[in-house]
Order: sequence, then C-alpha cells, then structure tokens
Amino acid sequence: MRRSIIVIFCILSVRIIAQTQDQNLIQFVNPLVGTKNMGHTYPGATVPFGMVQLSPETDTVQYELNGKYNGDVYKYCSGYQYDDKTIVGFSHTHFSGTGHSDLGDFLIMPTVGDLKLNPGISANPESGYRSRFSHDNETAQPAYYKVMLDDYNIIAELTASNRVGFHQYTFPKSDSAHIILDLISGIYNFNDKNVWTFVRVENDTLITGYRQTNGWARTRTVYFAMVFSKPFYQYGHKKYDQSIYKGFWRKFDESKNFPEMAGKQIKAYFDFKTTEDEKIKIKVALSSVSAQGALKNLQAEIPHWNFEAVKNQSQELWNNELNKIQVETGSQSEKETFYTALYHTFLGPITYMDVDGAYRGLDQNIHYADNFTNYTIFSLWDTYRALHPLFNIVQPVRNADMVKSMLEHYNQSVHNMLPVWSHYANENWCMIGYHSVPVIADAIIKGTLPAGFKYKELLEACVNTAENKYYDGLDYYMQLGYVPEDKSSSSVSKTLEYAYDDWCIAQIANKAEDKVSYEKFIKRSQSFESVYDSSIGFMRPKLSDGSWKSEFNSLSTHGQGFIEGNAWNYSLYVPHQPDQMIKMMGGKDRFVEHLDSLFTMHIDDVHFAETEDITRDGIIGNYIHGNEPGHHIPYLYNWTNHPWKTQQRVRMIMQTMYSNTPDGLCGNDDAGQMSAWYVFSALGFYPVCPGSNQYAIGSPMVKSAKINLDGEKLFIIETKNQSATNFYIQKIILNGNDLKRNYLLHSDIANGGSITFFMGSKPNKN
Amino acid sequence: MRRSIIVIFCILSVRIIAQTQDQNLIQFVNPLVGTKNMGHTYPGATVPFGMVQLSPETDTVQYELNGKYNGDVYKYCSGYQYDDKTIVGFSHTHFSGTGHSDLGDFLIMPTVGDLKLNPGISANPESGYRSRFSHDNETAQPAYYKVMLDDYNIIAELTASNRVGFHQYTFPKSDSAHIILDLISGIYNFNDKNVWTFVRVENDTLITGYRQTNGWARTRTVYFAMVFSKPFYQYGHKKYDQSIYKGFWRKFDESKNFPEMAGKQIKAYFDFKTTEDEKIKIKVALSSVSAQGALKNLQAEIPHWNFEAVKNQSQELWNNELNKIQVETGSQSEKETFYTALYHTFLGPITYMDVDGAYRGLDQNIHYADNFTNYTIFSLWDTYRALHPLFNIVQPVRNADMVKSMLEHYNQSVHNMLPVWSHYANENWCMIGYHSVPVIADAIIKGTLPAGFKYKELLEACVNTAENKYYDGLDYYMQLGYVPEDKSSSSVSKTLEYAYDDWCIAQIANKAEDKVSYEKFIKRSQSFESVYDSSIGFMRPKLSDGSWKSEFNSLSTHGQGFIEGNAWNYSLYVPHQPDQMIKMMGGKDRFVEHLDSLFTMHIDDVHFAETEDITRDGIIGNYIHGNEPGHHIPYLYNWTNHPWKTQQRVRMIMQTMYSNTPDGLCGNDDAGQMSAWYVFSALGFYPVCPGSNQYAIGSPMVKSAKINLDGEKLFIIETKNQSATNFYIQKIILNGNDLKRNYLLHSDIANGGSITFFMGSKPNKN
Repeated sequence: MRRSIIVIFCILSVRIIAQTQDQNLIQFVNPLVGTKNMGHTYPGATVPFGMVQLSPETDTVQYELNGKYNGDVYKYCSGYQYDDKTIVGFSHTHFSGTGHSDLGDFLIMPTVGDLKLNPGISANPESGYRSRFSHDNETAQPAYYKVMLDDYNIIAELTASNRVGFHQYTFPKSDSAHIILDLISGIYNFNDKNVWTFVRVENDTLITGYRQTNGWARTRTVYFAMVFSKPFYQYGHKKYDQSIYKGFWRKFDESKNFPEMAGKQIKAYFDFKTTEDEKIKIKVALSSVSAQGALKNLQAEIPHWNFEAVKNQSQELWNNELNKIQVETGSQSEKETFYTALYHTFLGPITYMDVDGAYRGLDQNIHYADNFTNYTIFSLWDTYRALHPLFNIVQPVRNADMVKSMLEHYNQSVHNMLPVWSHYANENWCMIGYHSVPVIADAIIKGTLPAGFKYKELLEACVNTAENKYYDGLDYYMQLGYVPEDKSSSSVSKTLEYAYDDWCIAQIANKAEDKVSYEKFIKRSQSFESVYDSSIGFMRPKLSDGSWKSEFNSLSTHGQGFIEGNAWNYSLYVPHQPDQMIKMMGGKDRFVEHLDSLFTMHIDDVHFAETEDITRDGIIGNYIHGNEPGHHIPYLYNWTNHPWKTQQRVRMIMQTMYSNTPDGLCGNDDAGQMSAWYVFSALGFYPVCPGSNQYAIGSPMVKSAKINLDGEKLFIIETKNQSATNFYIQKIILNGNDLKRNYLLHSDIANGGSITFFMGSKPNKN
Repeated sequence: MRRSIIVIFCILSVRIIAQTQDQNLIQFVNPLVGTKNMGHTYPGATVPFGMVQLSPETDTVQYELNGKYNGDVYKYCSGYQYDDKTIVGFSHTHFSGTGHSDLGDFLIMPTVGDLKLNPGISANPESGYRSRFSHDNETAQPAYYKVMLDDYNIIAELTASNRVGFHQYTFPKSDSAHIILDLISGIYNFNDKNVWTFVRVENDTLITGYRQTNGWARTRTVYFAMVFSKPFYQYGHKKYDQSIYKGFWRKFDESKNFPEMAGKQIKAYFDFKTTEDEKIKIKVALSSVSAQGALKNLQAEIPHWNFEAVKNQSQELWNNELNKIQVETGSQSEKETFYTALYHTFLGPITYMDVDGAYRGLDQNIHYADNFTNYTIFSLWDTYRALHPLFNIVQPVRNADMVKSMLEHYNQSVHNMLPVWSHYANENWCMIGYHSVPVIADAIIKGTLPAGFKYKELLEACVNTAENKYYDGLDYYMQLGYVPEDKSSSSVSKTLEYAYDDWCIAQIANKAEDKVSYEKFIKRSQSFESVYDSSIGFMRPKLSDGSWKSEFNSLSTHGQGFIEGNAWNYSLYVPHQPDQMIKMMGGKDRFVEHLDSLFTMHIDDVHFAETEDITRDGIIGNYIHGNEPGHHIPYLYNWTNHPWKTQQRVRMIMQTMYSNTPDGLCGNDDAGQMSAWYVFSALGFYPVCPGSNQYAIGSPMVKSAKINLDGEKLFIIETKNQSATNFYIQKIILNGNDLKRNYLLHSDIANGGSITFFMGSKPNKN
C-alpha cells in the first residue's frame, strides 16, 4: 500500500530536475500572510495546485452581537480572519485571495461535552460548537496547520494530499467526544445556498455523500468519502429544512443511528469515548464525479493512517516547487515575503479531476482528462497579467495543461466560449474581458505549449469567444468599435480590455498563419483610441450615438465607465501599445507628468471608499495597487525617458505593500496575481504585455536568484551593491554583455544564462 | 441508421418463439380502462416494460373554481382523469395504477397564439396554456395516443420506444406557435417538489438538461435530451423561484435566447411559425445517468423522424407480448377486458438503464447492468401476489432479470435490504413486509432462474433483509414473535406478512441446503398464531406486554392493527398455511360460514370510507377487492368442502369488478396486481401462495386459451359448456387424465400440455 503513495509522489516530482541543491524553503513560507484585512488568503493545508484546501474557518459571515447577520460576508471569502478569536471548524475547499466568496465544503469540528450543532457567534462562543483559540498555539506551514481549541482542550492538526484532507485531533479523556459534520456551513452561505445534501453511513468508520450548492457557482456538486481511524459508537443528524422522506413517518426515527440522511440543510454528528491524548484521525476525499470517485481518490492517495508521512510528503512537494526559484535577500523578512508570495502563486488553479482522470464538465456530464491534468478556478481577469506569465517560466508543463483545461471548457461550453472565470463545473462570469486569450497567446509566443496543440484550434476558440454577440457589450463593440456606456456599463474598461485581448488574438492568428483573422483582430486592437477623449486627456465613456457621456469624474470608480479602477488608472491600460498610448496622451514628457501626478496626488476618502477591497496601504497617491488594472503602470516609465522612476516606484511598492506578516497583502491576493506581481518585481522584471515576448525591467529586490527552468537550465540573477536604498540600476550585464535595452526577452531567460544588475543610490539617467 | 433500430427490436423480440400464429391483439386493448375513478392507469404511449411512459395530464392536482388547490392529488396519481375536460400537456413518466403519486417529468404542451406559461385551471381553460378536448377526438392504443387540442386546433400524437418519447403535433397556420417545456409541472408537485432543474439549448433543435426532485422518491434525477424536427426561431424561459446566477445581473438578459437556464422552478418555451397542417415532431430521450446518456439513448433508439415507423414497431412489440396468451372469450367485451388486463400487467416494472447498461443506483453512484436488464418500480407489497407469479409463466426471462435487479438494489442498499418499493434510485419504503422475498422464492421454487443465480447469495440477501433491527417493528417481532401495536402500528398486518415472508425464506433456505436458516425461519413463519385471538375469532393487535389491545373493531381499517384491510379480511392472511389457519379458526365448516358472512354482510358508509382508494363497486359485502390483502380470499373455499363457492365468487368478481370501459377497475391497478388477478382468474387458476408450486383452481372465464411458454412449449386451456351462468366446474381433464385435486402444479403448466374444464350451471359438490 505504501508503494502506491510513493509512485504518486514520484510522478509529481519527476519534473524537478535538481540542478541546484534543494534547500529547506518551506521554513520561509508563512501561510498566515494575507489573512488579516483584505488579503483573503487561507492559512490551512494544501499541496501545490491541490484539489483539497483544508483550512480553519473563523466565520463564514459576520454576525452582530445580537446574533443577527450583518451582511459582511466579504471579509470571509476564505473563511479566516486573523483578528477573530474563535474557530468554527475545518472545511475542505477554499479560494485563495478572491474578491468573491464560495466553497467551504464539509465543515468538521471536534468537540467534547454537550452536543451543540450550531456554530454560535463569536461574541458568545458558548452559544455553539465553536472554540476560542490563540495565535500563540497556532502553527501554519505549507501543507500543515495546527491549533489548540481552547474550549475543548483539543489539538487540531491538518494536512492534505492532492484530493484528500487529513485531520488529526488529539482529545482529552471524555465520554462525550463528538465529530460534527456541518453540511449547512459554507462560505457565502447566507443566501440559502444549499440545493441538496446526502450522507450515507456505510459502516461505523466510513461516510459518503455529497453537497450540491447554488452559490457563486450556479450548480456545484462536491462528493465526499470520509473515514474515521476509530469506529464511532453512535451517530445522528438534525435537519433544518422541511424536506421529508415520505416513507419515514411510519417506519423510522431518522434522526439517530439511521444510515441515510438527506435534505437541504443537515448537520450530522458522530460520537466517541476518548482516553487522555487519544488521537482520532479523519480522512476526507473529494470528487466532482461521485462518492465512488471520492472513495477511489481516498484509497489511491492515502491508504494508511500515518499523518506524519502525509505531512512530510506534502511538504516535500512544496519544497520541490519552492526550489524552482532560490533567492538570497537582504533580510529574513524579505525572504519570507518572497517565498510566501511564491507559495501563494502555486495554490491555484487547482487540480480538478479524480485520480482516474474523471471530472464533471461544464455541461454537467462526466468527462475524462486524457493525458493531462484538468484544472479549475481560473480567475483570469486577475491571473493573465503576471501569474500565467510566471508559470510560463517556472511551471510551463502545468500551464500547458491549464491551456488544455481552458480548451476543454470551451468544448463543453454551450456559449462556445473559453472561460471567463472557471468555477468547478461552472462559468461564473466574474469581471470582464475574455482573458483566456492572453494566457493562450502568452504560452504560444513563449513557446511553452507542447507539439500536440494546434494553433488553428486555439485560434478558433479565441475567435468564437471574441465574437459571441450576447456577451457583455461585444455586439456593440463589434458594430461601433467601442462598448457604449448607455448599453453596457463599465464600457471603457471593456473596450480597453477587448482591444488588448484582440491584439493577443492577432498574435495567435499570426502564428496560425491566418491573415484574415490577423487583420481583423489587429484592427479591433486599435479600439482603445475610440474611447480616448483628448480634450480631457483621459479614456472616457462614450454613448451609442457617438457622444461622450457628459458627467464625468476621473477620480471615481463608480458609474464612470470603469470597474475596479478610475479613469486615472484605467486610462493607462493599453499594454500592447504603450508607445502609441503615450503619443496619444501628448508625448513622453507629458506622460511622465501624468504618471508622477498619479503617484503623488491625494485621493479623498469618498473616492477611496469606492476602491472597495483594498486598505489605505494599498494605494500610493491615486495609484491603486490593491486592484489589478494598474499593475503594469509603475513599469510604464520604461517607455519614457525616465525608466529610473519605474525602479523607484516598484521598489517602493514592494517595500510598503508586501510583508511577511498577516497584514502583508494590501488587497485581495486575487488567486495569486498580487503575489505573482511581487515575485516578478522582486526578480527585477515584469510582463507588462503578456502575449509579447518582452519583460520590462524594474528593480530587483533580491540579492541573487537562481531560477530552475523546466528542463536542464538555470537562469541566474545577481545584483551588485543592492540594498533598500540602492534601488537604481546603474548597468546590466546579460550573459557577459552590456544590456542596451530596458527590457528582457523571454528567450534571454528561458534559454538559461545569467544577468547581473549593478545598483546604486542615484538614478542612472542615461 | 435504420439498421440499428432493427437490431434493437430484434433483440427485444428474439425471445418470442411463435408456436402459434400471431394474432392482431392490440385491437383488444383499451388503455383508457382504469382512467375513470380510482384505477390510476394512464392512457398514453409506452412499450412493454418501457422506461418512457408518454401520456397526457388532465391535471396533476385538483383545483377549486377559485383556483385554489383543494388537496386532492390522490386522483391524479397517473395524471389523467377520464371525466376531465381539458388536457394540460404530455409528460414522459407515469406510474400505472399506484396508490401514491410522483413522476410526470418534462411536460410538453403545443399552443398557438399568445404565449401562456401557466397551465391555468380546468374551470377556466383560457386562464392558461391548457386546452379543451373531447373523447370523440381521442384514440388510445398500445404505444399510440392521439387527441385533438380543441383550443388550438392542434392534433397531438404520441408514440414511444423504450427510452424515447416521440411527439407529433399537427399545427394550424400560425405566426405564433409555441412548444412549452414545463419543468415545474409534475405529479404530486404541490409540495415544492423540485430540487433543481437545468436546461441547455445546445443548438436550435437540440435541448438537454435534467430535473431533480424530492417527491415520493427522496432524491430523484432524470436527465433528458430533446430534439425538434424543425429549428425554433426564438426561445426563452421564465423562472418562478429566487435562485440567481451571480454573473448574470451585469452581463445578460437570461430570459430570452440565452442558452443556459437553471433554477428550482423554470418553464421554457420555443417559438415557431407554422404552415397549415405542418407537423412539428419532438423526440425526448430520458436517462438516469446524464444528458450524455439520454443523447446516447436517443441516437440508438430513434435516429430518424419516421413517426409511423416507431408507432408500428412499438405496437409490434406489444403484439408479440400479448400473443403470449391467446384467448377466445364469449364476447368481444370480455376479450377486451382480458387483453387490457394483460396489457396492464406488462407495463412494469420498467426498464431502468441506458442503452449501454448504465444506471444511477440506490447509492447514487453510476452502475452498469452486466448482461441483464435492470428494472425499477417494484411495488412489491402489491405485485408479489399475482404479477410476479404471472411473469414466472409468461415472462420468466424478464422476471429473472427483475430478481437480479432486486439483488443489485440489495448490494447498493446502505440498509442491507432488498427492495420494499424500488423507486428509481430510491427506496420509498411504501407499505409493509419484505416482499422481495416471495418474488425470489417463487422464482426459485418454479425453477425460472437461470443457472447463474446462487441460492446462498439469494438467501443471504433475504435473511439480512428480514433481520434489519430498525425496520418497521422487526426488532420486536424477532424478540416477541409478533409486532406489538404499542410499538409499531399496523402490527397485525406486519406480523402476518412477516410470517408469510419468513416461510418463503425457509423455502429458499431449503433449496440452499441451509438447515439452520430453514429452522429459524420456518419457526418464525408460525408467528401468525400469536396474533389470533380465539375468543373473538379474529387476528387482533397485541401489546408489548402480551395483552390484547382492548378496544377493537373488526370492521374498521384504521388504528386496529391493520393497513388497507380490516380484521375480517386480514385475519385470513396465512397464505402459506391455510389448513392450519382454518383449523385455528374452528375448522372447515365454521370457516365457510365466516367466508360466507364476509361476502354477504353489509359494511356501513363510515367503515367503507376508510377503505380509501376503492369505489363501492370494489367491495362485495365486506370483501374488499379493490385492495390487495384479500386477493386470495375467494380462493380459500378450496381448502374447505365447498370449492364451488370459490368458482362462484371469482366469476362474480370478474364480472362485476372488471370491464373494458374507463371505469373498468374497481380500485388502483397497483402496478398490475389487480390486472394480474384477473388474468389468472380468467384462465381458471390463481397463486394463493407464491413460493409454493401450487395454483388454486377457480372458474375460467375464457372459452379457451393458449399460453405460449418461454421456450418451445404451449399450455392449452379449453372449456366445455362455459358461459356467464355455467361457471361451476363439473370435472377437469389434465393431459388426458381426470384431475383429482383442486389445484394445479406449476409443472403441470410449465412443461406444456392441455387442460379441459367441463362447466355447468350447478355446483358439482363432490
């Protein structure tokens, strides 16, 4: 039985060609980073890109002292807030850093004493099964989480394999120990999210079942198989809805020791008698296919009860991944910030298939991933920017499988569209654009797709996506050359992002040698011009009659034609043609003034409040780093005569907006995008325009870095005279030669080699 | 494409070895029989044991004139009541004759004019999409139904293959023709039955989706694939619940021409422009597995658009089945009554698997039927009595597959139990006992199971079922030897039926050569003695302290320890030991007096009302033919010195309680049991004790009959001097010899041969 485990881990780790000596890097990861304020990360246990994210919930919605729900679900997108004083339980699925909430499936809570089936409220923990805890008794590592549940004197430990969550609870002596399985609890659950739940007590250690929800995903079903290390001596459940099983009224007491439970809202419990320090272990496997599939996953991944072995193996997986970039930094805290960011970039997209390749597709049918790993959770409006470009350097095999997963999504889509936001077997349509396209273009341009991919097929999927007439103002965009604000809101953001995505399609068409498509989409990619109002120097919403929307506020994020950004930030969104944008905006000098103003002006509280999900730390002047549309902006000085201002700004952002503490993220991590920005910037370069082969040069924060490229190559970054104050580049040597440009080519990196940054405290203005 | 159809039908018909010339027998079937009053049959189109039952709904619940629901769902168990004046639409699943309601999936209604999405009420048809109709313009045949929808001048025609319903609608000229797909409509729907529904418009002729319900079945999901012969030019849907798809509010108008619809309560419509007499055809395939499975069924069974061909092929299937018994009768009406009864016995259990053998099992996982046909809808409390015994004569191959299906149910049951009432992937626990056991015992004793079945395996399933401690008073029964009324209601009925079922287990144990089990269960089979109160001459409820329940009413059906029968009827329920029962009740003479009283006493209206689901025509004296517990009673005179009274009573029952008209059933047909009683009785014998090899002799109604036994044999029944008044048997010749016993052995029939009944108007009292 042990052998099969070893085989699995061998398969996962075979890609890591160790040219460098592996270091112990998990010690530098702090999964608690981002759990305070708006980072929306979770501190629990998962493997890289793992299907299970087993993590504590401190709450899923916020309650007032009076126990009434107060509407603030937003802060609980990942279920855990660092400032909270109680833990509700441990559930198996969590988004990392998203700006919307869902998941939190199959919450498990160990208790002793009187059985309580409601979580209660944090202001009065005794009102329910929740427990107080202290960060003093809490450990969070990659693939391992431990906490003391003070109210019960229970030590909770969590680890996970790809598809199985492994719980280990150390109990006090008790005649009334309980494991609660709360099928009502879920993240973003207040809106009657459960559609149906089903639990089968197969025997006195094995439970199977499923939960079907209508949350952010319209129709999501997760199956589970749950096994206890010790038989329970009795069990039962309580139903909180009105669904009835007709046959029961005459024959059964369904509530206790009856092995089949179902309904919309149920909570089950399993009772034990424990000796002092007795460990009860629970393994919970998930599947999108069936309980049978979950059981298969359980048996294949963790056939034994050795918690330490799973923890060690899963941490070894993390170490392998983290060693893809070995850095030296000026301080321990910088190193922790870096590796925590790298950790966050490897949390998702997540594996979405059973061990046999089966998964529930967008059409709700069961599909089989043929010779690739199928992934879900593509938060593409965020992640096309830096996360997938980072994968093209350090995770090219996974990234190619992600492209394949997007294509499968497209094939299953009744809309004939690539994913906008792939959410298990659902499209949740979050945000705007069709940013599968830049992910595909970037992989093609950077040459990381294996031979099996056909450019024409990829192009067709992109074109069909970009020509869907009922999608989000696209019909108008195709007719008018812009999205009119009176027909479709956030019209400027849409126009700008469609234009960029269309440029990416043109790059794909070029590779596919389809001239007609190239011409069509390169023309569409110029659409940004049609929403630029030269009279005010901003992009501005236009109406369907061709006139500008009359009222306009360049500082406001709401109702001005933009989304998650105001005109000051969003007007700079022409990643594919910065030169042309700068020219349009009055030339380089005027553009530098504009950028300088952006970073130095004051944004008042009213307009700040509209930025929604970031803290005051997340802005510099009016530059909003906590949201994505501006992520490339600090690098735009490179297209002017003042590239040293980029160096100053990106270093400032790294220093002020990221840290190794729970409040170390200034806004949502957004499925890894915020962290990917940091990883790139710390290494000294950034992909301003995914789909091109260029990286803009910034200012490396690291002392040195070795990037273990897939295959047998290393790219080595060195800095000379680098420090917190020496962040200006004096000169760069690439593979022994002076670099005369302020960008790197992908081939500079991907072929291996070395780069040396010579730093100083004053800008080199030449 | 045609070829695959032919192959399918060949497979289905290969078992019919025509030793007799096939006659056109479908002309004698009137599917409208039983649709008036309480028969609960449906008039629509299905093939023998078919998965699809495509049939009109005249309503699913009854509404008052004011449009308020009045609670009378019971009369709409099959969706159609003959006295109704309007049709709501045509749905794809119907129970035949059950005493509880469910199904009615995917109601389709063609209309012209203003689009209406609500059915409206019968008192005011214009209030909704329903239409008036007349029986003058209605045709109901096996596998074919036709009706004129007067309000729309649309001719509706229906036929079906096993898994596909085929609609053909002849429209008038219209610019606003609609096909409504009502996913809310369902039988027994008033209690918020829908859990979730999903519809995908794959293209302008193909729709897929599913409906998940929590009705009589706790968790039932039916998938569909629906294809139109002509593209619709627009479509849309309306949602009647609050479920929302988060992404939509910004991007889409979901209600019209948006190809993905979901929610708890939705109705869709598809719009056409039609020319005069234009036919729009629709094929709807079902699956319990997936939309993919439904599509597979559709393509395999009906790949073309030839409605007539499907109708002809499906009617040919019916003719093949009906020709298994060729009868001559004294009148056309008797022949119609007989063949309609035979038709009703071949409606279920229904096929429950896709063309590739896949089906959703009781554990909600997908299983594959390996080399057998998987069936569901086992209403076993009804059908073990005469329906399965009839199958052991004319459908032995199917019956063996039904036993296999029960075993699979057992293997998937978390209760380790054989089915009580198998309801798609659910156990609905309806009624009492564990009557899979007599079905299995009967098949074993009659030698109809093929070699692959292992007696020990069958025995184990029966024993585990009979020893489930939490099932319906079984724990007490095992401890006390009877079910105590103060612990479990209907205690006498349960005790008596457990005792009989236990006798059947003993017969199986005997065959399996398991002496321990034999002794155990033959002892349990005597339990009927413990609930007989000799002081009053009735079976009577006993309390857990061993005393009789003090208040007792032998005429009442409610609260007296019985179910669907009073003490007068139920006290005679010892089918495995009639001799011992008669002795216990005071001997043969006193028993005859008891039986005579039963058939001649008057039951007052108060007690009649308690019989629930039968009409006044359904009783003779206090004998309740409309419910099952008495079905063997008329034959009990055979165990006295007055067997001629059996002959008189059974003929009387046949003549007064069955006919060829819509009101031709005096109570629920109960999944074929009422009709199976008739088929046996009309042939002159009846299985009083399934699990034994004997049939009690009655009084043949037929002039003659040829039973085409599976294999190459015929059993020929002839009568001499038979008429409506000559119903007394004078003598019987079996295979050339005088029959000296008043029962037949199964081997007398199964080996082929002939029997001649000599009839007269006076009883032969010798």
